[in-house]
Amino acid sequence: MPEAGIFHGEIVLVGRLSFPNHFRVNVELINTGSELLLGRVLNTHQQWLCRRFADLGHVVSRQVAVPDTAHEIQQSVREALGRADLVIVTGGLGPTSDDVTRDLIARLLGRKLLRDEAVFAHIKNYFAARNRPMPENNDVQAMVPEGAIVLPNPNGTAPGLAMRAERNEDGGWRMEDGGKPSVPSSILHPPSSHSGAWLIMLPGPPRELRPMFDDAVVPLLQREFPAAMPFVCRTLRTGGIGESAIQEKIKAPLAALVAAGLEVGYCARVGQVDVRLTARCAGAEKIVSEAEAVVQKILGTNIYGFDDEEIEMVVVRLLTERKKTLALAESCTGGGIASRVTNVPGASAVFLGGFVTYSNASKEKFPGVRAETLAGHGAVSEAVAREMAAGTREKFGADFAIAVTGIAGPGGGTADKPVGTVFIALAGECGTVVEHRLNAYEREVFKELTSQQALEMLRHRLVSA
Amino acid sequence: MPEAGIFHGEIVLVGRLSFPNHFRVNVELINTGSELLLGRVLNTHQQWLCRRFADLGHVVSRQVAVPDTAHEIQQSVREALGRADLVIVTGGLGPTSDDVTRDLIARLLGRKLLRDEAVFAHIKNYFAARNRPMPENNDVQAMVPEGAIVLPNPNGTAPGLAMRAERNEDGGWRMEDGGKPSVPSSILHPPSSHSGAWLIMLPGPPRELRPMFDDAVVPLLQREFPAAMPFVCRTLRTGGIGESAIQEKIKAPLAALVAAGLEVGYCARVGQVDVRLTARCAGAEKIVSEAEAVVQKILGTNIYGFDDEEIEMVVVRLLTERKKTLALAESCTGGGIASRVTNVPGASAVFLGGFVTYSNASKEKFPGVRAETLAGHGAVSEAVAREMAAGTREKFGADFAIAVTGIAGPGGGTADKPVGTVFIALAGECGTVVEHRLNAYEREVFKELTSQQALEMLRHRLVSA
Repeated sequence: MPEAGIFHGEIVLVGRLSFPNHFRVNVELINTGSELLLGRVLNTHQQWLCRRFADLGHVVSRQVAVPDTAHEIQQSVREALGRADLVIVTGGLGPTSDDVTRDLIARLLGRKLLRDEAVFAHIKNYFAARNRPMPENNDVQAMVPEGAIVLPNPNGTAPGLAMRAERNEDGGWRMEDGGKPSVPSSILHPPSSHSGAWLIMLPGPPRELRPMFDDAVVPLLQREFPAAMPFVCRTLRTGGIGESAIQEKIKAPLAALVAAGLEVGYCARVGQVDVRLTARCAGAEKIVSEAEAVVQKILGTNIYGFDDEEIEMVVVRLLTERKKTLALAESCTGGGIASRVTNVPGASAVFLGGFVTYSNASKEKFPGVRAETLAGHGAVSEAVAREMAAGTREKFGADFAIAVTGIAGPGGGTADKPVGTVFIALAGECGTVVEHRLNAYEREVFKELTSQQALEMLRHRLVSA
Repeated sequence: MPEAGIFHGEIVLVGRLSFPNHFRVNVELINTGSELLLGRVLNTHQQWLCRRFADLGHVVSRQVAVPDTAHEIQQSVREALGRADLVIVTGGLGPTSDDVTRDLIARLLGRKLLRDEAVFAHIKNYFAARNRPMPENNDVQAMVPEGAIVLPNPNGTAPGLAMRAERNEDGGWRMEDGGKPSVPSSILHPPSSHSGAWLIMLPGPPRELRPMFDDAVVPLLQREFPAAMPFVCRTLRTGGIGESAIQEKIKAPLAALVAAGLEVGYCARVGQVDVRLTARCAGAEKIVSEAEAVVQKILGTNIYGFDDEEIEMVVVRLLTERKKTLALAESCTGGGIASRVTNVPGASAVFLGGFVTYSNASKEKFPGVRAETLAGHGAVSEAVAREMAAGTREKFGADFAIAVTGIAGPGGGTADKPVGTVFIALAGECGTVVEHRLNAYEREVFKELTSQQALEMLRHRLVSA
């Protein structure tokens, strides 16, 4: 049931957003792209952009995805401009016929599209530098709405575009010259009286959008939307304990801080639960750090990391601090643990390498599992996991070795060893231990959960040593 | 610039969605969760659910993410119910204090929450079967809005809930008994006159939501929203050619089909471009298959797969068909290629295993790179890639071996070999070839792009053999 401290205010059934903090900047995000609504791609912009805004002290209040169709794009932009102080629109700036955002927004706001010669020269140079002919349809990317600020795109051809839209008295849109920054009215007054908003269009490809946001949008935001109220967010990442159990343990001890403005959120993920502590008020820093101390004391080593720290980052950090090395032998996770570890910059200092032993022959040949162990216990067994880990540790000359062998499915299960059965072994200087788990999930979840558990085993060993 | 065949209709600046196909079911998706708006997690529901709807012949017209706050959830649900025939709401059904969706929607629609004894018994059993005490706050998950259909959750404690909301003449909500299915008015009349909608609430964790959707929601949809108009979508997945270049090649040849109702979409991804051919009209099947034949003829072997086929699935299929085996030696991709290959069910029939050789010593010891090659050329070199591939092929006794060595960054680059430098070698019965690439992207994109290129190399070899 809802409880105090979770809601921002009363439940008000009116047509506009309520603004519990009157000086908060209202940011909305619109992702255009039919491929999103057809489910052909994952929307990674949402997470990335929301995260960047949170880091800047702003919380995105709504994210919308719409297809590349005129009506849906214009409607969502119009609605967002009516509510928000800042609207970010992604996608639809490319050279092909379904890239219609630039044109539609210019029309919505009554702005002419003019060819920008500097942008055109950039596009020509972009192709020339790659020894590629410039396709004729890239021309359109040099068209810029009147008065818009051009955000350079060193990693592609479509520039970003930033504009300030002011509402006329008759309800239509009047565009101020984007080149003349002005303090939005919503910074000075509650947004309910706001008459305009910033509108920023960004290209769809992440490797173009991300540097453009950091290099061109962030300075604009810092100038136009200085954070008015401290906002602090801290995430404690836990493993080995459920969402309900966590809340039962921490709810009462946090009650006083919740009354003071703390908000507590939970997010259950594969093999882990994130506990999110946030505050947006005077003294937010103090409230959140006190809450963090309370939760740390209660959950102890169930907390493996903070904020964006993945378990693999923690493991690489702990190994580095302790000057220890790691090797892996993976059967059912098929390189998934190695891939997670090697996503961490600097992993090469502690990670020596690994075997992916998908066949029985390779389990014998590389980590040196004995033929009789395989024959006597089967490839998915505690005994094989143990020999894989010990052999891998020895072959690589590593301080620690993790080995996993199991049945990822969908085929291969038996009554005795159903799909999801897995043995995880950890070999170290004090011998080898093996955990037996039943991770009865679909193949990719199985791999992710098993790799999480394996890395957790190593983390516990490292922090308890 | 926009062109015919891309828009669904005129640009109409009115307050409602336009409905180019009057008998189309209007589906909207609302994802609740503050973690989404704080950018703490990736929204995988959007892709998964949109995809399922497309497979069922429906296209989601809008997806919205809102935080776990009363006003935002109720406002977005109210807006969606005003536009859509079917609204799916995900998240907020958990046991903790930020799980407020069930309660808020019941209040919005004026329904009492009643304790469902069957659901309560399921929750008790769920904990008992896992030898865990039932936390008291899981009680709330047994509360069901009056008249709602309970969607069982075998993989968790929160049931899904389905309700039909009918609008009263005074604009308020009247709820029909969900247990009495009724044909929505929008199937019989254009949705502009629709007076109600189905509302379905699903739990947030993917491993609970996905089976629930397939087992309980799909039958409900098939009963309530039989597809009224054929919808066909085919995606051709390409590598080695840019988005503009593809459009320049295929635009004119597809013009007649576009006039007949074909829509063409493009989606640029890491190392690849998807070409999406869709039609929603009488004869859609014929239009799309003719378009596919045209594009196939023009793009030829640049097309590596169709629809959801990832390159690793294609490679596993081709190896299986040709009864060939594969082994890998990965340095800079750190197990990423092996992990992709082993995501494919049945990979074990063709994939023998691999080495992750992150240290120089492991490059010597396992695939058998000569010390003088390492010393003379450096670990990131054509010569080392060549010996890694040939050695790995021999050690595993595989038909093919791929080896990669490169600089993933952010550190480790030199003037001579900048970050992003990579050598990809493919060894087969007719010798070893090496490609030299410069993939100057951030670490994880580098790994993904390099693994895509490596698998593409093998695919080309397999289809040309």
